[in-house]
Amino acid sequence: MSSEFGKLLRVGVFGQSHGKAIGVTIHGLPAGEAIDTELLQQFLDRRRPGGRGGLATARKETDIPEFLSGLENGVTCGAPLCAVIKNADQHSRDYSELADKPRPSHADYTAAVKWGGHADMRGGGHFSGRLTAPLCVAGGIAMQILERRGVYVGAHLSSVGNTADEAFPLHPTKELFAALAAKPFPTISGEAGEAMQSIIQSARTDLDSIGGTIECAAIGLPPGLGEPMFDGIENRLAAALFGIPGLKGVEFGSGFEGSRLRGSENNDAFRVKDDVITAESNRAGGILGGITSGMPLTFRVAMKPTPSIGRSQQTVSLSAKENTTLEIHGRHDPCIALRAVPVVEAVTAIVLLDLLMEGNHGTF
Amino acid sequence: MSSEFGKLLRVGVFGQSHGKAIGVTIHGLPAGEAIDTELLQQFLDRRRPGGRGGLATARKETDIPEFLSGLENGVTCGAPLCAVIKNADQHSRDYSELADKPRPSHADYTAAVKWGGHADMRGGGHFSGRLTAPLCVAGGIAMQILERRGVYVGAHLSSVGNTADEAFPLHPTKELFAALAAKPFPTISGEAGEAMQSIIQSARTDLDSIGGTIECAAIGLPPGLGEPMFDGIENRLAAALFGIPGLKGVEFGSGFEGSRLRGSENNDAFRVKDDVITAESNRAGGILGGITSGMPLTFRVAMKPTPSIGRSQQTVSLSAKENTTLEIHGRHDPCIALRAVPVVEAVTAIVLLDLLMEGNHGTF
Amino acid sequence: MSSEFGKLLRVGVFGQSHGKAIGVTIHGLPAGEAIDTELLQQFLDRRRPGGRGGLATARKETDIPEFLSGLENGVTCGAPLCAVIKNADQHSRDYSELADKPRPSHADYTAAVKWGGHADMRGGGHFSGRLTAPLCVAGGIAMQILERRGVYVGAHLSSVGNTADEAFPLHPTKELFAALAAKPFPTISGEAGEAMQSIIQSARTDLDSIGGTIECAAIGLPPGLGEPMFDGIENRLAAALFGIPGLKGVEFGSGFEGSRLRGSENNDAFRVKDDVITAESNRAGGILGGITSGMPLTFRVAMKPTPSIGRSQQTVSLSAKENTTLEIHGRHDPCIALRAVPVVEAVTAIVLLDLLMEGNHGTF
Amino acid sequence: MSSEFGKLLRVGVFGQSHGKAIGVTIHGLPAGEAIDTELLQQFLDRRRPGGRGGLATARKETDIPEFLSGLENGVTCGAPLCAVIKNADQHSRDYSELADKPRPSHADYTAAVKWGGHADMRGGGHFSGRLTAPLCVAGGIAMQILERRGVYVGAHLSSVGNTADEAFPLHPTKELFAALAAKPFPTISGEAGEAMQSIIQSARTDLDSIGGTIECAAIGLPPGLGEPMFDGIENRLAAALFGIPGLKGVEFGSGFEGSRLRGSENNDAFRVKDDVITAESNRAGGILGGITSGMPLTFRVAMKPTPSIGRSQQTVSLSAKENTTLEIHGRHDPCIALRAVPVVEAVTAIVLLDLLMEGNHGTF
Repeated sequence: MSSEFGKLLRVGVFGQSHGKAIGVTIHGLPAGEAIDTELLQQFLDRRRPGGRGGLATARKETDIPEFLSGLENGVTCGAPLCAVIKNADQHSRDYSELADKPRPSHADYTAAVKWGGHADMRGGGHFSGRLTAPLCVAGGIAMQILERRGVYVGAHLSSVGNTADEAFPLHPTKELFAALAAKPFPTISGEAGEAMQSIIQSARTDLDSIGGTIECAAIGLPPGLGEPMFDGIENRLAAALFGIPGLKGVEFGSGFEGSRLRGSENNDAFRVKDDVITAESNRAGGILGGITSGMPLTFRVAMKPTPSIGRSQQTVSLSAKENTTLEIHGRHDPCIALRAVPVVEAVTAIVLLDLLMEGNHGTF
Repeated sequence: MSSEFGKLLRVGVFGQSHGKAIGVTIHGLPAGEAIDTELLQQFLDRRRPGGRGGLATARKETDIPEFLSGLENGVTCGAPLCAVIKNADQHSRDYSELADKPRPSHADYTAAVKWGGHADMRGGGHFSGRLTAPLCVAGGIAMQILERRGVYVGAHLSSVGNTADEAFPLHPTKELFAALAAKPFPTISGEAGEAMQSIIQSARTDLDSIGGTIECAAIGLPPGLGEPMFDGIENRLAAALFGIPGLKGVEFGSGFEGSRLRGSENNDAFRVKDDVITAESNRAGGILGGITSGMPLTFRVAMKPTPSIGRSQQTVSLSAKENTTLEIHGRHDPCIALRAVPVVEAVTAIVLLDLLMEGNHGTF
Repeated sequence: MSSEFGKLLRVGVFGQSHGKAIGVTIHGLPAGEAIDTELLQQFLDRRRPGGRGGLATARKETDIPEFLSGLENGVTCGAPLCAVIKNADQHSRDYSELADKPRPSHADYTAAVKWGGHADMRGGGHFSGRLTAPLCVAGGIAMQILERRGVYVGAHLSSVGNTADEAFPLHPTKELFAALAAKPFPTISGEAGEAMQSIIQSARTDLDSIGGTIECAAIGLPPGLGEPMFDGIENRLAAALFGIPGLKGVEFGSGFEGSRLRGSENNDAFRVKDDVITAESNRAGGILGGITSGMPLTFRVAMKPTPSIGRSQQTVSLSAKENTTLEIHGRHDPCIALRAVPVVEAVTAIVLLDLLMEGNHGTF
Repeated sequence: MSSEFGKLLRVGVFGQSHGKAIGVTIHGLPAGEAIDTELLQQFLDRRRPGGRGGLATARKETDIPEFLSGLENGVTCGAPLCAVIKNADQHSRDYSELADKPRPSHADYTAAVKWGGHADMRGGGHFSGRLTAPLCVAGGIAMQILERRGVYVGAHLSSVGNTADEAFPLHPTKELFAALAAKPFPTISGEAGEAMQSIIQSARTDLDSIGGTIECAAIGLPPGLGEPMFDGIENRLAAALFGIPGLKGVEFGSGFEGSRLRGSENNDAFRVKDDVITAESNRAGGILGGITSGMPLTFRVAMKPTPSIGRSQQTVSLSAKENTTLEIHGRHDPCIALRAVPVVEAVTAIVLLDLLMEGNHGTF
């Protein structure tokens, strides 16, 4: 399997950061779906680096996908889709030293163990955050297909360091999602956003980085989606989300906070409203027994601080098997959580589309 | 798929809480593995209810598996294994009202939506915590096979409510795992354990329940296990762990805590010790890029408070589509996290055995 | 994976011929399907041995499945189904010699290589034709669900040795299927059937066995089912059919005969009839590009002659690594093709139900 | 899934015949494997059209793959491999009429039903035999990796129409495989080859086409590969082989011929030779119970006659829903079996490499 996921909709990512190209294949995409490439590009631009006042790396990535198959005249044709993004702005020199000195908390070391000297780890190789660009191509396509069916996915940067944004309201709206997507710094609270930006800026000034969390939600899902035990929404979303580089935790609904509560505090009372069964709170995150309840799907993910930092760090020389130090040069995002916001949306959209295509096959 | 998981080793769970029997099938189990059924029973007894001074439900479950296939003369024979546990102590009366009144934060409602009136939700049906008994049969078998190869899995109750146990040391030992497994209340710190027991007892007295977290670790894993992006250790473990009823969050290494740190604080420096490359800290939880680093695998899971509580709760009548209240009688664990400790070990052992059987096929 | 197959509907078989029990699990079965157990038993009886005037083995197998889960009050409840058949009439003595002397053209040798001395090969172990009984439980259930949706599966013994039955007509009917199912010797032509019976009887008298072929068809399938290239109807059916012990070939439509024809002879002309697009012939077997065309699905399978024959045969002693001879005693079917007829239907029904549940997701 | 297959080694094909490019992704390829691109090109050239004295289509396909990822400095690097072949020589005009008039026995009709008007069926679209080019890229790579481990795959055109080549000897050699690969017309018997060429030439002259069969063998496989019932060698090979356009039948060992034999004729006697257990005949095709026996793997596939023929054929107008006739112009292979020979080898090599990577995990 490796860099693929999905059941009826199979998404696979390929490429190395400094190889010829990176790309994505999608097998099982429904035919007849018009894809607005301008909208798609806007979505891709949300994860693109390029300044943001120093909050993201200054690398220039154009990230314009070329569709080799599956999309004809802007409409999906049923055949597997392949989109490719050429790699252009490579500075492989920067990474020459790293072949021997694994960067702390990077995949350099484990890739070297697994693949021996053959691993192409220039710029992080296949483990680079750059691989989230083709993932967003697939996710952006999935989002357009979902929205046509009334399903919307949105996310915001819910914390940076110790500073938290407001949480999503009980019933997030597509307007809120759109507003967040339009912001250069995607927080609900402008004030919290500014505080977070200061924290990131300060980490950057210190040649350091900072972690963060992202809250994601999906609305419009029918109740009854997902299978029991090992094939529920949580299982499938978590499995896919941990494919995002730097993501180290996933919690649904009240999650770890819920583990500190009593049942009487954490349970969501059912109520009838306008002849529809709903819940008065959503600590379940819209999922009961792995199956959607009809309430918004909500979850949070933990993003670690970028492991590539400018400060001198302790590491080893693989060839000499001795201790040494390492200074990483080059351009790095001081907070990968910031750029991961649309990536989390992308992965979520792909998983949800896959589940929806499967149908609510409790009965059929 | 539904209630199955795994790649080369496929584990599937079947049964409803108050049906004839529950059980497990294991496809792909290696042949020639002697299974000590007494040891297995000891493992199963760790998740069994039965008093513990009121800390767990008083239901009598014997949980003695009968092996229908795959195990001959105590040794695995290569053919698929099936083990069955008869259901005996059923009080289906207790649940008659629930067919119409879904218990808040239970799967009753979503099962009813998905499967219509045909769902057998007596005692929680297929969603019941009781289904973790056959899961532990598979996990206990996997643990014996792993231990023969120097891989050990252990877990402890790392928090109940707001009270936390000590964390695992940097290098947990199999002796520590064994000591925890022998304790009726599996915490590292006896003091923390007593405080937690008071919290559970107090929740029980209040006809309420309480959440908790479990920390799990595995030692002896070779570096290089796991595939990049969507098929790494984290993806596969998370996908399986979310199959445990009531589990709402998973974090590896420093996880959500790490999202509050700077890179300089969260990175694990590599060091050479006794000619072996190791790390001075383990905020990565033994995983870099989805691949084992050779450091202990560590993660924490969040268990929600038992949703079945004795207090009156607000819910709806599905037939009348109107608001009503519900009082749940019967016997329920005031803290499912306590009994989930061996279940987390079981699921982890199954996933790790599956990965080890696959081999470190970076090269082959 | 091993003894499981399917995508949304997962069927797994377990048990050894002389173990405690054999059985089947079905994950993903739709809820709310009433299963007529009498009809199911009639289906199971079609593959049961028990005389037939010496044409099948005289072993007494009762083959009455006990449903441990998934079926409540005769209706599927959404949870995984498990059915178990106890093993009763075992004569393991008969097989003691075989642990050391592998029967020619049996799995004895390969199982010994794969699983070492731990393989339980009494009576053929997990490789025994007996394992087709639980497979037929799953298949019989699938057939009832399919028939409710207008899809019918039928098969006949299309040849024994060099003697062939008539082929299915261009448009087989459910009445023809029912008539075949009611016959003790399932051929279309009574004359051919009698000739075949003589051939089988004669092989039996000679302490020998004889091979045969089975033609299977399915009607009522919508056009558009199946995915391109590696996930089409042919791929999935073939993958499952080769799980039937003794099955060594599969051909769709004109198959190997078609390889001897010219395009002008083998092509099926499209025609409009009663405003419906249909074909004037069906050498494609109802499948174009792996996708159903709306014409009947037709294929043939080759069953080898029973490898267990009464005659003295050359084999080796595994322990002594020297040549020896073997005489197999006990009761064996002189023609496994005869009993495999309902098994082929069963496997086909399972694969088709799985495909139908997936929906025609070209568009969705 | 659709156009992908494999378990640990996942191969996926994308592209439409007249789209921008066709290509292949390989996930799970072992690292450190040097790929001789010249050898690979020689392999690709074996399936290339381009004359052969009129025996194959005159289309010019260069089929030179560009490696976008996974291969660095000619060595696999562990990351997923993507190879792309640009589409150049397109005559989409030729196919404009076919959007409304489905070609008999082509996927035109089923694709139109499945994907509506959105299917890109120019030149056969994703169902075109052209898609076997990227499949051969993956297969050629797999063959090089296998040969390094002593496993060799070879095939020959075993019949065209009613004229048959000699069968492979009991123990085919790698020298025989190499000799066949070097022949422009891959038959064992030169005489049979000439007769077959006449048959193809004659079909071509008559604006017609002809079917054929291919026999394939693999040597050097260890015994014990493959899992019981639904995950054996036969299941996995058949599932993959039916992905080859025009392939309508698969038989292992004596296959359909074996169904006409008695057990005493079809059984393979075991013998000890040079202290190794072997068989005196190979009607099992090297597979017992789905598991390799150590004898050569052998099977035959049936290829239908090319459905695209120059003669006028009966079909329908999809828009008018009325009968009409169709004349297909353009260049077509009069015998696709000829060009499918290396494709069968390619698919076989991929499946075998996948199985070998999995290890003989009966015990581990």
